[in-house]
Amino acid sequence: MQYTKTDDAHLNEIYLDGQTLYESNFLALKQDIVRLPDGKTATREFIKHSGTVMIVPILHDGRVLMERQYRYPLSCVMIEFPAGKLNYQEGSRECAQRELYEETGYHSNEFIYLTRIHPVISYSTEYIDLYLARNLTPGEPRPDDGEFLEIISVELVQLYEWIRSGKVSDVKTIIGAFWLEKILAGIWPEDSTPTEYPRRKSDH
Amino acid sequence: MQYTKTDDAHLNEIYLDGQTLYESNFLALKQDIVRLPDGKTATREFIKHSGTVMIVPILHDGRVLMERQYRYPLSCVMIEFPAGKLNYQEGSRECAQRELYEETGYHSNEFIYLTRIHPVISYSTEYIDLYLARNLTPGEPRPDDGEFLEIISVELVQLYEWIRSGKVSDVKTIIGAFWLEKILAGIWPEDSTPTEYPRRKSDH
Repeated sequence: MQYTKTDDAHLNEIYLDGQTLYESNFLALKQDIVRLPDGKTATREFIKHSGTVMIVPILHDGRVLMERQYRYPLSCVMIEFPAGKLNYQEGSRECAQRELYEETGYHSNEFIYLTRIHPVISYSTEYIDLYLARNLTPGEPRPDDGEFLEIISVELVQLYEWIRSGKVSDVKTIIGAFWLEKILAGIWPEDSTPTEYPRRKSDH
Repeated sequence: MQYTKTDDAHLNEIYLDGQTLYESNFLALKQDIVRLPDGKTATREFIKHSGTVMIVPILHDGRVLMERQYRYPLSCVMIEFPAGKLNYQEGSRECAQRELYEETGYHSNEFIYLTRIHPVISYSTEYIDLYLARNLTPGEPRPDDGEFLEIISVELVQLYEWIRSGKVSDVKTIIGAFWLEKILAGIWPEDSTPTEYPRRKSDH
């Protein structure tokens, strides 16, 4: 039962054919036909996504900047760290700087890459790159047209209590908070850029 | 900037009309027209999802049971805690017991509810209920037809190192591992059932 790096032919699925079921400016729904490890075929439906960046912005007094934003699929206002979708051909660090500025008005000259996470492994190609931002200087937010949000600053002890109590339930925000705790406690080094995260073998 | 519970009329979006763009046994894609806080209208596209359950199964020796499974949207094998989608009209605890048994063969008489998280707040209604399972007794796995996975048991110190290094990047698995750490360290009580998680005002 011990984990060993082996040939994964008994698990892998092979692309046979595919089509786009729906496509808009916001998302694309794909359907592929695959060959399963036992030789049978199956269909795989999934969202093709350009990737997301999230920023954990720490103020000089130790509080973090967060947003309150209405999330339509859940029909409620969520408390989150600033985040946004990668534009076409935009690097993830560049996107982090842009989104932090647009949504909160804050600039930072210190972005530290934390990790890459995968929020929807069963039906989306989305990844989220997490950054820590320090040395923040305030300015005026410039939200996108049709984007309504409220900026709040939160004590860390309050944030962890909100996670425990379920008031903060957005996965990227929870992971950013836990990661920050590890770094602030000196348990994980700041500069431990992950290198092992799964890389997709091919573009769908 | 302090967080206060206020009237969220400046953030809320109101349903005006909606349609189903695509529907299969696996997923449904919806498109709604909403009224924004400034009175303008916008479209919202999202996946309608029945909900998911994930189990953190702890063995008597302190190791956790995990799975290696090929995840097609990411084109790679991921290391995860056992999880599965809720069947129609199935309770989440019942689903946790069923999925743990089907995927790993293990039974448990001790399921502890941890929390509810939201993995895709911008384009899916999905929630994931997390459970801790103890007092495990082994048996024979009965995976669904077309489901191929490998069961492994992992030392906790190894799991945290895999998270830090990016080898484990599935969000629900990372959050389950962090939650377990808080409970084992006695920082969060086991029986602190969250009551504050966002509840959707209405069904789409």
